[in-house]
Amino acid sequence: MSDIEELARRSKAAAAGLATINTEQKDKALLAMADALEQKMAVILEQNEEDLSAGRGQGISPALLDRLTLSESRVREMADGLREVATLRDPVGEIVDGWKLPNGLVVEKVRVPLGVIGIIYEARPNVTVDAAGLCIKSGNAVILRGSSSAINSNSVLVGIIAGAAEKAGLPKDAVQLVESTDRESARELMRLHGLIDVLIPRGGEGLIRTVVENSTVPVIETGVGNCHVYVDKGADIAMATDIVVNAKTQRPGVCNACETLLVHRDIAEEFLNAVYKPLTESGVILRGCPVTRKILNGVAEATEEDWCTEYLDLILAMKVVESLEEAIGHISRYGSSHSEAIVTNDYTRGKRFVEEVDSSAVYVNASTRFTDGGQFGMGAEIGISTQKLHARGPMSLPELTTTKFVIYGTGQVRR
Amino acid sequence: MSDIEELARRSKAAAAGLATINTEQKDKALLAMADALEQKMAVILEQNEEDLSAGRGQGISPALLDRLTLSESRVREMADGLREVATLRDPVGEIVDGWKLPNGLVVEKVRVPLGVIGIIYEARPNVTVDAAGLCIKSGNAVILRGSSSAINSNSVLVGIIAGAAEKAGLPKDAVQLVESTDRESARELMRLHGLIDVLIPRGGEGLIRTVVENSTVPVIETGVGNCHVYVDKGADIAMATDIVVNAKTQRPGVCNACETLLVHRDIAEEFLNAVYKPLTESGVILRGCPVTRKILNGVAEATEEDWCTEYLDLILAMKVVESLEEAIGHISRYGSSHSEAIVTNDYTRGKRFVEEVDSSAVYVNASTRFTDGGQFGMGAEIGISTQKLHARGPMSLPELTTTKFVIYGTGQVRR
Repeated sequence: MSDIEELARRSKAAAAGLATINTEQKDKALLAMADALEQKMAVILEQNEEDLSAGRGQGISPALLDRLTLSESRVREMADGLREVATLRDPVGEIVDGWKLPNGLVVEKVRVPLGVIGIIYEARPNVTVDAAGLCIKSGNAVILRGSSSAINSNSVLVGIIAGAAEKAGLPKDAVQLVESTDRESARELMRLHGLIDVLIPRGGEGLIRTVVENSTVPVIETGVGNCHVYVDKGADIAMATDIVVNAKTQRPGVCNACETLLVHRDIAEEFLNAVYKPLTESGVILRGCPVTRKILNGVAEATEEDWCTEYLDLILAMKVVESLEEAIGHISRYGSSHSEAIVTNDYTRGKRFVEEVDSSAVYVNASTRFTDGGQFGMGAEIGISTQKLHARGPMSLPELTTTKFVIYGTGQVRR
Repeated sequence: MSDIEELARRSKAAAAGLATINTEQKDKALLAMADALEQKMAVILEQNEEDLSAGRGQGISPALLDRLTLSESRVREMADGLREVATLRDPVGEIVDGWKLPNGLVVEKVRVPLGVIGIIYEARPNVTVDAAGLCIKSGNAVILRGSSSAINSNSVLVGIIAGAAEKAGLPKDAVQLVESTDRESARELMRLHGLIDVLIPRGGEGLIRTVVENSTVPVIETGVGNCHVYVDKGADIAMATDIVVNAKTQRPGVCNACETLLVHRDIAEEFLNAVYKPLTESGVILRGCPVTRKILNGVAEATEEDWCTEYLDLILAMKVVESLEEAIGHISRYGSSHSEAIVTNDYTRGKRFVEEVDSSAVYVNASTRFTDGGQFGMGAEIGISTQKLHARGPMSLPELTTTKFVIYGTGQVRR
């Protein structure tokens, strides 16, 4: 048996214990984990500095360095995150449905933990703590497999929270880190069908594709967002401008930011001239279709590749469309089914957009930036699912559970 | 582009149309499909005879031949199955949750079709019609890939129902059959991530394992059932006997039949002596642990392999356990997480069994044979999920859907 398989077997044993632990005890553990992080601030920052100096030595990008960096306030944020999770409602044990059959059998559909959840993620050490907190609260054992660039940070964080969790009465091995960060360790995790119940990759498109292609363990895909805002004819110009600027610029590096703007031809001249200044003043680089470029001189040409690209940057592709149908068709062809918005004042056209666009979140007259568990009022989130199976859109605690049927009888047999 | 990929693209186009069609129209199509099957009875039976004579020529087993065989009454049953699906509630459009955020945004979680569902199945031609009916009612396009032994039957059935569906106004290609039944066609289906939204294999363990190992498309595993009945100390002997005999013998060839009997040592002598006669009189071959064999002379020895085996036959493995814990541990180690029952009159021990056994259906004082969409009162079923992601236990129409978030605003942007 390989080291990784042994580790997963320990997680499976821990999961059996976690499944039946009361909420009170899980919450106590979460608070203890939060306190431990703050108490061990110095050693966390020290180990983080190891990663940072190694990263500087390897010349990694400033953006990546920033994502790797822990500070006193970031550690406190992680601790507060755990405390917030402790306040959320425990989904385990919820009877989501139930009925009595004609033969007297009582059927209940009860929410139970998934079991063992594997998280494969890149860079950000805060994922280590956030994911562990959500998995524990929902009664799951978690196997964390971060990237090599954060190995010292992840290792010290898991040591602290796993130790605190065990001391607070949770099963040993409720939280485990895969210390080996080579490709093989990730691939091995992906093949542990039957030991790991679900894998959630968090990171770039390459990581997610690798997991989807190689995993025999069920996967929840997260994150890739090639999001669209469509400005319909007759839309309120000021509202459309606000929404487009917000969706593009409020935080361009995240999955729910707008990447392509679609504009109905009847409003194109007026709207593009209105939105040009606030976008360019926010530093947005524009790329347009031929019609866009006739209206806005000096805008670079958008190519087929632009329609496909999740820039995660201050770049916006723009296309003037002939019709609502063309807008929906473009989204269906190039989108990643994450978040799309229509700005319109037409009831019928808004309804059609909502029904025909097949994305995890579809907006009428609001910014795509709201696709987020916290913004939706669902509490902390473990990611945003862009697949259709199991969960779609922001995933919080209930999405980390499954159900089982419990049937109470008095000796019934089938005839 | 390969033929299979082209076929899947046509399904995806059909799915876009199906997603927004009203229930009335879908029901009309289902009834038309049912009528068409009955009208074309002769040609169906003729094509089925082609499969049967080919099968006889290849010397396939009588059991398989029986599963392949269509008769007038079986075709009528398929037609009536479609009519029954037409009476079920359409899950599409259900608003499963909804709320208003402090900023005025209205968030709705709406049930929508999965999109394109692939079914890979063996032998039984009735699956062709049943699966197509459930997929259409839930607004999904379906790609059917049956086995070579049933190709003539499947081909004529799909021709009839797809034609009737299109004539009744459903999108062309809502129901498609993969005519090529070589391994390559199945493997190609499994790699169409992004075109097919979910694959459901229906058949033996080998088929299901092949799909799990090779699919990049999300899979819902169905079917394998190594089910247990545990007779606790203090159980009612007559009730326990009824339940064990029913769970083993009422229909031994199906996934919710009992394969291993666990008996608490304090009741072993009395219960095993009571259950021996009705079991053996029903033709059940017994295999036991050493303690069982001391109580019941002449019972063959059960090996490690017996604990792992889904017999699907009139064979029962029997083990005397020291404790409730040992019973739960045995189920956890050898079971397939399908259906398990405890027979007990002890409140605390019943509660522990229900909470600690991690299966899709857990029974107190009832036969495992009830794990079935129809028996549970859920309507027709497309299969029984033994995985935790998305759906667990019997799957009916709601399990063939996903949700999307629809957000109605008045110009909200994120600050």
